[in-house]
Amino acid sequence: MPDKYRLHYFDGTALGEPIRYLLAYGKCNWEDVRYKCKVDDGNMIKAPFGQLPILEINGKKFVQSTAISRYLGSLLGLSGADPLDNLAIDTAVDTFHDIRAQIASWYYDPNPESRAAKTKPLMTVQIPFYFKKLDELVQSNGGYVANGKLSWGDLYIAGPIKYLNFLVGFDLLQPYPHLHKLVKEVEAIPHIAEYIAGKPHDLW
Amino acid sequence: MPDKYRLHYFDGTALGEPIRYLLAYGKCNWEDVRYKCKVDDGNMIKAPFGQLPILEINGKKFVQSTAISRYLGSLLGLSGADPLDNLAIDTAVDTFHDIRAQIASWYYDPNPESRAAKTKPLMTVQIPFYFKKLDELVQSNGGYVANGKLSWGDLYIAGPIKYLNFLVGFDLLQPYPHLHKLVKEVEAIPHIAEYIAGKPHDLW
Repeated sequence: MPDKYRLHYFDGTALGEPIRYLLAYGKCNWEDVRYKCKVDDGNMIKAPFGQLPILEINGKKFVQSTAISRYLGSLLGLSGADPLDNLAIDTAVDTFHDIRAQIASWYYDPNPESRAAKTKPLMTVQIPFYFKKLDELVQSNGGYVANGKLSWGDLYIAGPIKYLNFLVGFDLLQPYPHLHKLVKEVEAIPHIAEYIAGKPHDLW
Repeated sequence: MPDKYRLHYFDGTALGEPIRYLLAYGKCNWEDVRYKCKVDDGNMIKAPFGQLPILEINGKKFVQSTAISRYLGSLLGLSGADPLDNLAIDTAVDTFHDIRAQIASWYYDPNPESRAAKTKPLMTVQIPFYFKKLDELVQSNGGYVANGKLSWGDLYIAGPIKYLNFLVGFDLLQPYPHLHKLVKEVEAIPHIAEYIAGKPHDLW
């Protein structure tokens, strides 16, 4: 019997969307459970480490979006062919995770003075540095983040772009044609395109 | 011919130490290149994403300590037996990464007011929450972070503890007997113990 999945996440893209893309890509038996509010805001669900997303696999709960994405990638033939190929995918994924964390650390900074001090370095140094490097990486890998072919790393990076654009307030990928093209290609993969066409309106 | 490794990192534990533990564990042919100062402080080396650690594998440079640790783990028989076992290791690793990032975000916060506001939640909520969960995880997995046996995830968590204790200023693991025992066991693995006995004095 095929595995049965239930994804618990907010009604937005961010950390949940790569998992949704993977479940859609694999035509898995899955349910997209979306929360309108913060988890601890009344709609509390029991999370192993107090966080979302949670993926239930045949009723057992798993957390950590990157770990979950790598797991689904390995089941769906979207891993590397050997450890060195997997290292290339993981390096791209962790690098993207780094700049995403920097953007989040700025956006969610509750101290106005501290947040203001982060704005210029983030916008003029960190974002251009990371996204230019990632764009070059995609260019040098035949349009993908690693190994010249589609992997779970491509879906991992494409999934949260809408959310990151929402945080910064502009189209992050506009200056980066290779990354931009990759995201469009991922969104055009038939099963993913079908999921996107049918999904609820994301808050972000 | 066996692979030749050169690890470039600061003269401290933190993100470099899990990689050193893995290279020592595998009795690899490796060189431990240590920098006394910040990378951009004169001792600049060319890093693919402007960061350390860098692992050179047969002269080719790789970054991202988690990706590198997973790669070495897979070469050294320290991965899981199947995708679900690997998910369990990756989940523990990413969870440890989360609390490490929260400690670093507090310690390195350049805004005194913002830093002060983080102290109480970090010390009384975040650290106890994460370390208690990790301790329970180790307890429920026969003394290891996953699957009831040693994996690269155990070395990954044991490596940076000295650094994290330095950041917080106290023995983080004192209240967590299962984590404490795990770290001692990793440090007592013969090849790792040999490396620890012979290494230079870490700055942190």
